[in-house]
Amino acid sequence: MNGRKNIAIVGGGLVGCLMGLYLARRGNKISIFERRPDPRIHAVDAGRSINLALSNRGIKSLEEVGLGNIVRETAIPMNGRMVHDLAGNLTFLPYGKQGQFINSISRGDLNKTLVWAAEKEGIEFFFDHRCIRTDLASSSLSFQTDTITTDQQFDAIVGADGAFSNVRMAMQLTDRFNYEQHYIEHGYKEFHIPAGTSKVLERNALHIWPRESFMLIALPNPDGSFTGTLFFPFEGASSFKSLADPVNFESFFRKSFPDVGDLITDLQEQLKMNPVSSLITIRCFPWSMHNTLLLGDASHAIVPFYGQGMNAGFEDCRILNGLLNKHNDDWGLAIAEFQLFRKPDTDAISHLAMDNFIEMRDLVADKDFQLRKKIESKIHSLYPDQWVPLYSMVTFHEDIRYSEAYRVGQKQKKIMDEVMKIPDIATTWQLLDLQTVLRQIKED
Amino acid sequence: MNGRKNIAIVGGGLVGCLMGLYLARRGNKISIFERRPDPRIHAVDAGRSINLALSNRGIKSLEEVGLGNIVRETAIPMNGRMVHDLAGNLTFLPYGKQGQFINSISRGDLNKTLVWAAEKEGIEFFFDHRCIRTDLASSSLSFQTDTITTDQQFDAIVGADGAFSNVRMAMQLTDRFNYEQHYIEHGYKEFHIPAGTSKVLERNALHIWPRESFMLIALPNPDGSFTGTLFFPFEGASSFKSLADPVNFESFFRKSFPDVGDLITDLQEQLKMNPVSSLITIRCFPWSMHNTLLLGDASHAIVPFYGQGMNAGFEDCRILNGLLNKHNDDWGLAIAEFQLFRKPDTDAISHLAMDNFIEMRDLVADKDFQLRKKIESKIHSLYPDQWVPLYSMVTFHEDIRYSEAYRVGQKQKKIMDEVMKIPDIATTWQLLDLQTVLRQIKED
Repeated sequence: MNGRKNIAIVGGGLVGCLMGLYLARRGNKISIFERRPDPRIHAVDAGRSINLALSNRGIKSLEEVGLGNIVRETAIPMNGRMVHDLAGNLTFLPYGKQGQFINSISRGDLNKTLVWAAEKEGIEFFFDHRCIRTDLASSSLSFQTDTITTDQQFDAIVGADGAFSNVRMAMQLTDRFNYEQHYIEHGYKEFHIPAGTSKVLERNALHIWPRESFMLIALPNPDGSFTGTLFFPFEGASSFKSLADPVNFESFFRKSFPDVGDLITDLQEQLKMNPVSSLITIRCFPWSMHNTLLLGDASHAIVPFYGQGMNAGFEDCRILNGLLNKHNDDWGLAIAEFQLFRKPDTDAISHLAMDNFIEMRDLVADKDFQLRKKIESKIHSLYPDQWVPLYSMVTFHEDIRYSEAYRVGQKQKKIMDEVMKIPDIATTWQLLDLQTVLRQIKED
Repeated sequence: MNGRKNIAIVGGGLVGCLMGLYLARRGNKISIFERRPDPRIHAVDAGRSINLALSNRGIKSLEEVGLGNIVRETAIPMNGRMVHDLAGNLTFLPYGKQGQFINSISRGDLNKTLVWAAEKEGIEFFFDHRCIRTDLASSSLSFQTDTITTDQQFDAIVGADGAFSNVRMAMQLTDRFNYEQHYIEHGYKEFHIPAGTSKVLERNALHIWPRESFMLIALPNPDGSFTGTLFFPFEGASSFKSLADPVNFESFFRKSFPDVGDLITDLQEQLKMNPVSSLITIRCFPWSMHNTLLLGDASHAIVPFYGQGMNAGFEDCRILNGLLNKHNDDWGLAIAEFQLFRKPDTDAISHLAMDNFIEMRDLVADKDFQLRKKIESKIHSLYPDQWVPLYSMVTFHEDIRYSEAYRVGQKQKKIMDEVMKIPDIATTWQLLDLQTVLRQIKED
């Protein structure tokens, strides 16, 4: 089944557009169906994250389709985490080595760029088209617009329609489809922190206010403003539910994040008006049936705490494209191999993303944790090939699979747990016998 | 919200009918909607298990609604597992103490009995009514029959519509509904083993042919026949897929189960005609929204290897009825407490059922496992209150919650793992210091 194919992509978000670009360049006829209006005309929905952390895996895919320049032009480098404690003290924790950083990028701008690029490549967009039915056996789709319902048949379908994928629903109704949707007990609410705050908020950093059971983060925007995101329990003593009254919420917010509270002039208004969104994890298998394949959040939505959701989706596109090369555009062979190869990696990043929530809201404020990072970073700088910290493997090493990073990371954790048990390690760590540590990482 | 309520039960299977009986006796107006035809006129579907293992939890509920007699009249006691090895040797492993047994019962007959009893209680049945939509906020349902679609509004709804529950689908589309469906890699195919085999197959036993990666079991029917069920991988070297040719399948079957192969005269025909069904586990939460509650397989379908699926569903009914007593028929309070109280128990039996597959297909043929059971059974007979084996807690002790059985069972396992490490335990176990063992089970 090679040759020019008529392929439908359901979902015109980041992953759908990027996959469209890859597939169009392979000579296929691509139609992208999106339930939302054209993002070039209408702003993105409220309640979706405004900026995202783009890192190496995502960048590599963008570069492959010739969009590497957008990163350099519009993204804001974030060199590390700036941790804000209750007293307003700041601690800067670099993400990696000198020159390694992640990028704050606007979801809306990136989406628009991808739509423009896709159109230039001859891809046809159908906005305001809601996919209401997928027939897997015949590769046909039904769409609903404000006025009509249409049916169309394709050679292949890509379901890039996000965590609440309608394409996936068709798979879910078949026999032996494994599926899991899990919500964490925290939701999130975004805040606009106006420009002119650069004296308080260092521009080239991801800011974190870790408060154990909850946290606030903030990412820089091109106009000098920041977007803050509060991750907060839905229910319980301090929760969206218990603080439903904006007056109480405001005083809680100011007490919890004193330095940022003063930067938001309309804090109470924002607490009242900005929506609360939930955070879902999706796992499923298989990802492909007949000629239909799920991609990105549709098959593996993850929580945002490793900044890898978009990056993992973009990496999906690159890997599928590589398999289409390998299989001479035999779609059936490519998607069959894709799901088997890729599933362990997205499972790994799914677990890592969940684990990182605890790290972000709790451990980054912990002295032992900071010492651990310092020791690991020293080992890495002396033996860069033998010990790459987990965060670096995930974020800066697009050549290391997520599943491999996960495996090595667990081994590193065990070794470092033992190192941290050494008496007086806080004062003696510079004298640590690194050869012994490195020997352990090589053992199987 | 007490007083006489107009309650819809979706699903007229075992759990739906039993819950209907409980609720009708509380003075409510009950309508039961079932997508299948009346089981008193049409036989049950092919591909659903023909007989089930009824044990104490299920019996207790049936007794509460005055149907305890059906057990004594129609069920066949099974006192233990009869293990068949490849050479045709038999080993009998009692389920519990003398006089403790589980019961082989016909699903079809039990369902008919429940429908008759429900009708006598004034419950109205609507067969051939497929529920196609649940509106949780207004407690209304849409049904489709061969000819019409109707909408009806109720005071409360019980979704007892099984593993593929349509009522649950409505919950699944709301925010923050956790849901998991998982299929195991084995499917099953049923066989009819004709009557007159009693010389080979002891009537009062559950027969098992454990073959490590697969197994056959057989339960007795009232007419002297047995129903055999082959649990077999869908894919792989020896699988439903690789043995799709009935001639090959027959020779494999005869080689794997020599003593039973000869009892089935039309074996090849049955291998060819009888369907292969899959085995699903469902976990979800919450179980209740507004005035709608999921019950039985709809909220917690489990694999059949502990013989507890129906028993757990019947226990759901008894517990909900108890909570309606406690809350003076306040439906909202009762279902809110029900789901919080019951969820850990159905999670526990879900895990136990999965674990028991390994035990049944593998361990029951293992000498160490048999010794372990013998030692546990001795401890139990000497100290019946201090050490109840896990299987007995689950099956014969309806006063012990599944979650408690699971917790204690894990503790017992750890203790017995140590006991089994004692050198020469196979010859010295009669001399074991039981006081030391019992002391461990009391420690926390």
